[in-house]
Amino acid sequence: GISRAETNSVDITRVLDRHGVEIARKSTVPDHETEIAAELNFALDRCDVVLLTGGAGPTEDDRTIDAVSSALGIPLVEDADILSDIEAKFSLRSLKMPAVNRKQARIFAGHRALPNPRGTAPGFHIIFKRGNHTRHVWIFPGVPWELEEMLETQLGAWLEKVSSASGTQHRTIKIVGLTESAVEQSLRPFYERHPEQPVTLLAALGEVHLHLLTRGSADDGYSHLMALEGELREIFGERIFGLDDETLESTVGRLLSARGETLGTAESCTGGLLASRITDVSGSSAYFLGGVITYSFQAKLFLLGVDPASIERHGEVSEEVARQMAEGARRRFSTTYGVGITGIAGPTGGTASKPVGTVHVAVSSLEETRHKQFLLAGSRELIKRYSTQLALDMLRMMMIPSKPDPGLSLSSSASRSE
Amino acid sequence: GISRAETNSVDITRVLDRHGVEIARKSTVPDHETEIAAELNFALDRCDVVLLTGGAGPTEDDRTIDAVSSALGIPLVEDADILSDIEAKFSLRSLKMPAVNRKQARIFAGHRALPNPRGTAPGFHIIFKRGNHTRHVWIFPGVPWELEEMLETQLGAWLEKVSSASGTQHRTIKIVGLTESAVEQSLRPFYERHPEQPVTLLAALGEVHLHLLTRGSADDGYSHLMALEGELREIFGERIFGLDDETLESTVGRLLSARGETLGTAESCTGGLLASRITDVSGSSAYFLGGVITYSFQAKLFLLGVDPASIERHGEVSEEVARQMAEGARRRFSTTYGVGITGIAGPTGGTASKPVGTVHVAVSSLEETRHKQFLLAGSRELIKRYSTQLALDMLRMMMIPSKPDPGLSLSSSASRSE
Repeated sequence: GISRAETNSVDITRVLDRHGVEIARKSTVPDHETEIAAELNFALDRCDVVLLTGGAGPTEDDRTIDAVSSALGIPLVEDADILSDIEAKFSLRSLKMPAVNRKQARIFAGHRALPNPRGTAPGFHIIFKRGNHTRHVWIFPGVPWELEEMLETQLGAWLEKVSSASGTQHRTIKIVGLTESAVEQSLRPFYERHPEQPVTLLAALGEVHLHLLTRGSADDGYSHLMALEGELREIFGERIFGLDDETLESTVGRLLSARGETLGTAESCTGGLLASRITDVSGSSAYFLGGVITYSFQAKLFLLGVDPASIERHGEVSEEVARQMAEGARRRFSTTYGVGITGIAGPTGGTASKPVGTVHVAVSSLEETRHKQFLLAGSRELIKRYSTQLALDMLRMMMIPSKPDPGLSLSSSASRSE
Repeated sequence: GISRAETNSVDITRVLDRHGVEIARKSTVPDHETEIAAELNFALDRCDVVLLTGGAGPTEDDRTIDAVSSALGIPLVEDADILSDIEAKFSLRSLKMPAVNRKQARIFAGHRALPNPRGTAPGFHIIFKRGNHTRHVWIFPGVPWELEEMLETQLGAWLEKVSSASGTQHRTIKIVGLTESAVEQSLRPFYERHPEQPVTLLAALGEVHLHLLTRGSADDGYSHLMALEGELREIFGERIFGLDDETLESTVGRLLSARGETLGTAESCTGGLLASRITDVSGSSAYFLGGVITYSFQAKLFLLGVDPASIERHGEVSEEVARQMAEGARRRFSTTYGVGITGIAGPTGGTASKPVGTVHVAVSSLEETRHKQFLLAGSRELIKRYSTQLALDMLRMMMIPSKPDPGLSLSSSASRSE
């Protein structure tokens, strides 16, 4: 199905990226045998390796296996071991195998199936000659949880072998609080110094990622990447929050863990998204003690001890209330830091003086409470997302020793979405 | 950039789906002028309409506009009005327009640009003849928030005109709590009764969506779809939670609003994701009063009044604690319903008796507290997601009058991820 491919292609890109594999093309085609076969042949004319995902399931419109069989001219045969394996997986859940799942026991004659420990659809790695060239066709199930495991253990291991032979090193530098244009502008001198160095910019959800790639032996490649990273740190300073697989929430978690400190949250307009991102990090229970979502006036009073007179004077969306929420969260959970967010996520609820997108974020420690006001653009979900991004970044900045500003105009960039 | 395309293609698919437009192919190609031009020509050989998104930004690797110019042989010229418009957008934010943004003022000679009220990259709708056939090339910016608006106002309006002429009606039926295999199995008699009816199954994140399409006049098409929907309701009963653009959280919100009831939440392993999903719905402040995230033992006691003896006897991940969390949330926020979730999201923290994926969900009203235990498979993020899905569904079931079970084995399907 089409909807699945969306997260899958991100997972696949991540594994390929890590091994410096260039993606020549990526296509989604309808669940028709002839369309899939035509696309496969088209891709095999241009690429050494073709990965297929989805359409290996048990349902009527799962056509991938048949399409590959007809495109490559390799017949399908039922494998008794795989069939009993599938039956065993169903009986583990006290279910009888539905008849439709039987087709998942077919393999390409003369080729082995790849084990799928998390599901019933097997994968395949078919190696064959096309003219004088060796071609690789990989087939993976479309269920993300199954795919994820097989990418790591099967594709990842194979790429490890292949790319260590060709010697490719890569690094992703992650930047927060600057727009794509601002990053591009600041990179000009870097581009001029390194005209041959491939740099790919990817911008998404308030972050800009710089992908660097280098070829050569592991040692040379590594020191080259380290030197480039050093130059980028000169340019972007504290705006770089992480490398490779790190996320803003994992960086904040790493800092909290290293300092032996703890965190509590108080959210209004973000409705729990900040806490949810923080708890996406495995092991976060070591430093995240809890949070409150105060969507009502009353909850702000009784859960956080916000002064009703402040709300009356300044409104629920105000600097004063954000500060009291952050301080209230810190006291409530007896933590080192408290974060408070209050704002108007829209699309309704805005006024002339407080338009949709007005967000106040405060971060409180024992020593001080910092506050920033933002005016964010976007849908309700984007405003929620950007608000958590800004809160995590303010918390991060409170934990790292301050360095001289590298001269980037942070406040104006950070106060708007791109 | 590639990372952006992921949410964009979902947005585009939604608009096309709504107008019954069949997607013949979807491709992602590198930011190289020749690759984009080759792909565009390949697609124009097969399709009437080609949509391009991304690569219309100001940076070095934004090559789409130049590629289209070379593929179609239409030169680019700078438009003075667009240039001053872009400058005005920057000065609104008290910024000077970076030099790199100047290239966004170019248009295709003889063709008008589409306004982009949310950003600086214009869009285009280029209509031209290729042989005897009229072809349409649409170019949209890659920034999701900008794209979203232009899809609705520009593409949506055009498709409205085109498809009302051709007469296509469509409906999406959304199912929760059944695996894709189970849905497919139950659909067999429906398929047999309607061999000509196109039905597309999409499964993602604990839901299965059935897309139905019919051609004909608006009246005929509508009554045909209503009849099909009626048959599917006979088969799936309460497992159908919504239609078209509805989500599980918007359905729950609609039920709460209609009944004038309110909700509070208490989350442990889901870490705020349940509240965040509930507050993704615009207007949710009318029925969602607040939530607590109790990641620590202490927070369960002081925020929710969970009995420490229960925790000691049964552990934090137990039926007793889930029930007390749900009841505590309901009392805390003085709401009609309270939801409590406690579990082990992993990848660490599991034991032999309580493995990773063990989740207890309870929903409490004034009359009763219902509880279910699940054993979920997947990554930490998937277990969080599925847990919120199950909690929303239990809350939904508490609000709808119970009907006879249509004979589907819900519990075994619902207790496992697919």
